[in-house]
Amino acid sequence: MTLPTLLVLDAEPLPRLGRLTGRARIEHTDEATLAAKLPYADVLLVWDFTSHAVRDAWPGEGPRPRWVHTASAGVDHLMCPELAASDTTVTNARGIFDEPIAEYVAALVLAMAKELPHTLELQGQRTWQHRETRRLKGTRACVVGSGPIGRAIVRTLKALGVICALVGRVPRTGIHGPSDLDRLISRADWVIAAAPLTEQTYGMFDARRFGVMQPSARFINVGRGPLVVEEALVEALTKRWIAGAALDVFAHEPLGPDSPLWELPGLIVSPHMSGDTVGWRDELGAQFVELYERWEAGRALPNVVDKQRGYVPGR
Amino acid sequence: MTLPTLLVLDAEPLPRLGRLTGRARIEHTDEATLAAKLPYADVLLVWDFTSHAVRDAWPGEGPRPRWVHTASAGVDHLMCPELAASDTTVTNARGIFDEPIAEYVAALVLAMAKELPHTLELQGQRTWQHRETRRLKGTRACVVGSGPIGRAIVRTLKALGVICALVGRVPRTGIHGPSDLDRLISRADWVIAAAPLTEQTYGMFDARRFGVMQPSARFINVGRGPLVVEEALVEALTKRWIAGAALDVFAHEPLGPDSPLWELPGLIVSPHMSGDTVGWRDELGAQFVELYERWEAGRALPNVVDKQRGYVPGR
Repeated sequence: MTLPTLLVLDAEPLPRLGRLTGRARIEHTDEATLAAKLPYADVLLVWDFTSHAVRDAWPGEGPRPRWVHTASAGVDHLMCPELAASDTTVTNARGIFDEPIAEYVAALVLAMAKELPHTLELQGQRTWQHRETRRLKGTRACVVGSGPIGRAIVRTLKALGVICALVGRVPRTGIHGPSDLDRLISRADWVIAAAPLTEQTYGMFDARRFGVMQPSARFINVGRGPLVVEEALVEALTKRWIAGAALDVFAHEPLGPDSPLWELPGLIVSPHMSGDTVGWRDELGAQFVELYERWEAGRALPNVVDKQRGYVPGR
Repeated sequence: MTLPTLLVLDAEPLPRLGRLTGRARIEHTDEATLAAKLPYADVLLVWDFTSHAVRDAWPGEGPRPRWVHTASAGVDHLMCPELAASDTTVTNARGIFDEPIAEYVAALVLAMAKELPHTLELQGQRTWQHRETRRLKGTRACVVGSGPIGRAIVRTLKALGVICALVGRVPRTGIHGPSDLDRLISRADWVIAAAPLTEQTYGMFDARRFGVMQPSARFINVGRGPLVVEEALVEALTKRWIAGAALDVFAHEPLGPDSPLWELPGLIVSPHMSGDTVGWRDELGAQFVELYERWEAGRALPNVVDKQRGYVPGR
């Protein structure tokens, strides 16, 4: 019996795939050799979820993996029309990042409500300056993105007394549709982007949307950088259309040292780490092994991405 | 009918006492004239809760107010043996600060779990440096002080998935006694001081207690500065006995520019503001007016301090 070939697009540290010994022929690849190796792989594990190489290397009509798994929630870095049109199954790391990202968003929201960055700045100047800060309870959040991450954010903020509205692609029970978005962000204290990057969401936070928000509003992006028109956010913060923002994701990552975003007033910049809590890589590896065992047994896979929409559709 | 004399130990901004017009003869005082005015007052409102002048000015056996209210949760700044021995009723601002302080503690705990101070430091250096941070859910907190503030902290942290133990002066259902303290702090990720300052709590966080904590533990004080032996905390942080700390209160406030605490590694310093959210002074004023109306009607006052213990006893 021929073992399936499992191709791993590597990143350090490597995934722990010891449990697959004798059950897969594991081959490693970097971006340079990906195109040459893809036609001979049965399964592709996109362990380097920062790479966009799959798009360029995808063999189109030729021989290709039957299954692609990415160790990330977003699939924007690998989707291309040829992959979307193919019969290859794409799965993602749904579930791993939900609660960590929700905690991270709660940390940002509370830090902004309690003015922690200003406190740390004053501490650096050895200056005692008492200020009044905001109650979080009773404020309003609009969370954009109704997948498991957005829903976990809502659960966590609700536990802190925040009044939450959730916006998704299609309205359904407890979830607003896109037509409610402007109304909801116009009265929100917190606008939180946790949507996948798709044609519909690309650039959705633009000058008009920042203009709709309250001067006291704060904007947080833990989704994907291109959800935001960065120039518009720079203007919104510079002109005080909104009171503050926090970005964990950017149009170009890593953010270059010359970016104006590093020093923008009221902006917290973090290096795409909102979901990455100690042990996260082990969890991603273990999740893939579990999926591999199902695939090997011919069972249906969970976390299957709708390749037209660009995310795993909700239940 | 003679109106009761209400003496207000002033601080800016003054309390809004318009509702008491025609119902009290309101006199204002500063620290210098307090002793001269106290014997003629029926009620003393300690609006300047940072002042220790009541202790020195208290008339002992002489004529004195029948009721003293302080616009603070702690009463350590005004209690003295003569006041404790007198038949004067002392009330405090119980209830105003509970939830704001709990939110503030949640902000500190999440900021430390997610390493927000380090992120801001790296941002200032325009440096992109991905790190793994900690999950908050499933960590353990030991909250010291079982009054309404400590209980609000426990409620808020529990809502974030933290496993909480509460320590009070006397063990009762759901509350540990002091004999459990060392065991609880030895396994806590978060040790949070929210106790009143009394003879029993003075200096309770000393070198031995910091030595008992885990190297990964973080300590937060939102109670009163003298709960902590500051030199011992300096040593504990410098020698990495514990991983970090946040102090909102200090032995001497405001903290002088020469204090070593400003630049201690892993320490967040804030200027006694944890409970002070927008509108807090109005709430304190409204609470006093409500108490005054009860007192005027001869009804029992809530928030009566046990002057021997130094706080309002729990139910």
